[in-house]
Amino acid sequence: MRALLLVAHGSRRAASNEEVRALTRRLAARAGERFGHVACAFLELADPSIPEGIQACIDAGADQVIVLPYFLSAGRHVIEDIPAEVRVKQEEHPQVQIRIAPYLGAAGGIEALLLDAAGEE
Amino acid sequence: MRALLLVAHGSRRAASNEEVRALTRRLAARAGERFGHVACAFLELADPSIPEGIQACIDAGADQVIVLPYFLSAGRHVIEDIPAEVRVKQEEHPQVQIRIAPYLGAAGGIEALLLDAAGEE
Repeated sequence: MRALLLVAHGSRRAASNEEVRALTRRLAARAGERFGHVACAFLELADPSIPEGIQACIDAGADQVIVLPYFLSAGRHVIEDIPAEVRVKQEEHPQVQIRIAPYLGAAGGIEALLLDAAGEE
Repeated sequence: MRALLLVAHGSRRAASNEEVRALTRRLAARAGERFGHVACAFLELADPSIPEGIQACIDAGADQVIVLPYFLSAGRHVIEDIPAEVRVKQEEHPQVQIRIAPYLGAAGGIEALLLDAAGEE
């Protein structure tokens, strides 16, 4: 089973974390057969952590986990921190394939999305 | 003429600001007839500022400026700071229609984009 873990930075502002959780629920509702488990995790300031989020995917039966960084730029969090946390869990669970997808700011189609958003009334 | 101003937070990390500028160039290339002028501006830490960016749109001949917040959550920057800066320019230029589009995290279609990004190999 394939799982999707949306990884956000996490915020001191509870409403921002809740926005991520609500988005994750919408992703789960739309995932169809692509992902059997859809969840979110936070780099800091909110729960669950990235290791906890990956573990929950594995506990749910995932043999493939796609970690999707919900970040706009390739800063230290995207380049170093998230891969480091993923690496630890990968070493713990060599039988599970854990892959980091392009972060949001580098996702194909973001230009079309932004142009559409700009055109929304 | 209608202009699109992508407004990012701005970063101490020059490469993050350059990512926004590169995205803006790709938006300009794709805008077609929808926008006659496409530019970016930064809330802080990088140039141009939001007032400077709006002014450049007006100087380029825009009678409508769409300000698109390149932000993931409805925090203080999206709710208060960007609207406050826009309001000042709107009062300076009542003949120009300046509108704030949904911020990226609230844009329709972000779920589909994320699911596609998660599926990219």
